[in-house]
Amino acid sequence: MNEFDLIARLTRSLPSNESVVTGPGDDCAVLDLGVPDKLVLFKTDAVVEGIHFTRETPPEKVGRKALARCLSDIAAMAGTPTAALVTIALPKDFDVAFVSQIYEGMKELAEKYRVAIVGGETTTNPGRILISISLLGIVDRDRQILRAGAKVGDAIFVTGELGGSLAGKHLDFEPRLEEGRWLAAHFKIHAMLDVSDGLAGDLRHILKAAKVGAELLKSALPVSRAARLHSREPASGQKPAALAALTDGEDFELLFTVAGKDAVKLLDAWRKKFPHVKLSCIGKIVAGDGIVLRDKTSSHKLAAHGYEHFT
Amino acid sequence: MNEFDLIARLTRSLPSNESVVTGPGDDCAVLDLGVPDKLVLFKTDAVVEGIHFTRETPPEKVGRKALARCLSDIAAMAGTPTAALVTIALPKDFDVAFVSQIYEGMKELAEKYRVAIVGGETTTNPGRILISISLLGIVDRDRQILRAGAKVGDAIFVTGELGGSLAGKHLDFEPRLEEGRWLAAHFKIHAMLDVSDGLAGDLRHILKAAKVGAELLKSALPVSRAARLHSREPASGQKPAALAALTDGEDFELLFTVAGKDAVKLLDAWRKKFPHVKLSCIGKIVAGDGIVLRDKTSSHKLAAHGYEHFT
Repeated sequence: MNEFDLIARLTRSLPSNESVVTGPGDDCAVLDLGVPDKLVLFKTDAVVEGIHFTRETPPEKVGRKALARCLSDIAAMAGTPTAALVTIALPKDFDVAFVSQIYEGMKELAEKYRVAIVGGETTTNPGRILISISLLGIVDRDRQILRAGAKVGDAIFVTGELGGSLAGKHLDFEPRLEEGRWLAAHFKIHAMLDVSDGLAGDLRHILKAAKVGAELLKSALPVSRAARLHSREPASGQKPAALAALTDGEDFELLFTVAGKDAVKLLDAWRKKFPHVKLSCIGKIVAGDGIVLRDKTSSHKLAAHGYEHFT
Repeated sequence: MNEFDLIARLTRSLPSNESVVTGPGDDCAVLDLGVPDKLVLFKTDAVVEGIHFTRETPPEKVGRKALARCLSDIAAMAGTPTAALVTIALPKDFDVAFVSQIYEGMKELAEKYRVAIVGGETTTNPGRILISISLLGIVDRDRQILRAGAKVGDAIFVTGELGGSLAGKHLDFEPRLEEGRWLAAHFKIHAMLDVSDGLAGDLRHILKAAKVGAELLKSALPVSRAARLHSREPASGQKPAALAALTDGEDFELLFTVAGKDAVKLLDAWRKKFPHVKLSCIGKIVAGDGIVLRDKTSSHKLAAHGYEHFT
């Protein structure tokens, strides 16, 4: 049983109440707590030593990453983050300086985005550090962007570059908060999420939610320099760069769809507003299911699990 | 460096913003998100295998406890819980049935108190299960009860019975949500918190926040039957039952202070409203600092750290 199967099983028939606008399964939960004109976003995310960072990772970057991951989810709902709680589970022999520096990295990013850190707790976790962040945000009522809503004919866009994040970006990425809000304010975005598990996997979430398929143009994928360099190293096992862009994960870019007729206008406006942030139209939403990848001479369907047959 | 010293160091000069009414250090953070007449409560709490439960603990009770601990903090602010997120970190060899049953226990308690479970995540934690709950609640504006605010002359009350919680209560306790709200609605409660670390330790939080001391009457301490039974077992090392009531922890009862003149009226009203929940007046707030314990013939000050000299 993989993580998604387990979550699907655990989140069957969860208790709800009248405050819930959007429950499990999107980037954030969306709640109506009675704020006029606003909805509340609620998100939690954890990083674990040995998985998301190591003892060799600069501790400030560990703290930064822990918070930035949650901020990226708020960005994907077009929201503004407000307040965070920090749970940090520590081995008994923890290094006080290391833990303090984790906090420093978190605090610096929180200050940048005006997020209050309003508490949390420390607890014991023999063997490894685990940091769980809970984040509250707000979004203009009816301006939150969900994963569902993609329509046949939509253009598919992604910000920034993809693949090779482990070379450094996973510790330094900038959550696309301003970009997310700008998109929601100026265009009718049909579906949006942040790319954390890899473009192919995350796009599938959008496709499943709307029961549609996607056609991607291989040459349009914004492959990062890190992924291209890595693909040339013998140690990479010759993983093609485009495959890295589709599957590496931890990109924390925004993936979204808009009506095809809005695509050019959106690209033009984006380039004026965010001249230093790449935006790529990588394909379109089609009837059917799954992802077809096209290049000049051929097209083939990506396997739903694993990418062994990818060339 | 103990947990409290570490938290004090980490939470120095945390980023804040205009939404923060009460930051770190109370049972919950209190936020003003613009809900008319309401404030938002925000809390996180984790339970860890080997510390708060074991593989032998019935999994439903593990899930129940994880959520109930957070609910108890909402109760201590006189709030109403709204929505929870669940983070569950699992060893690779986790038992799907065990994890599902953790969720069942959590869901049952959530339904009882109309708490929506709106998502969360699973992640990997080699070696042990860790469950972190984030909880949102609401409270009538200006009716939230903080830890600070105790005044000299206040009567000190505690609900239920104390000590010996590990014999079972720590898995089965009922968060005092109705009681907390009723207290705030009918009396001017000066300070309140939930007893999680033991009466003596938690009372000290109230005393430090108000720069006052307390006199407790040993005979008035509501020592639980479990603590009394355990104190008679040779295996207990003859820990006196009153000491257990002061220091065992995991009681999850409400500890609060009101003006001495309100004490009898409060007790009378309580007994009519909650005939099956014990409420004990255990002492009073005095000038000075620390805790003095009195019995018929003597009085002595409790040591600030450890209780080796307790008789």
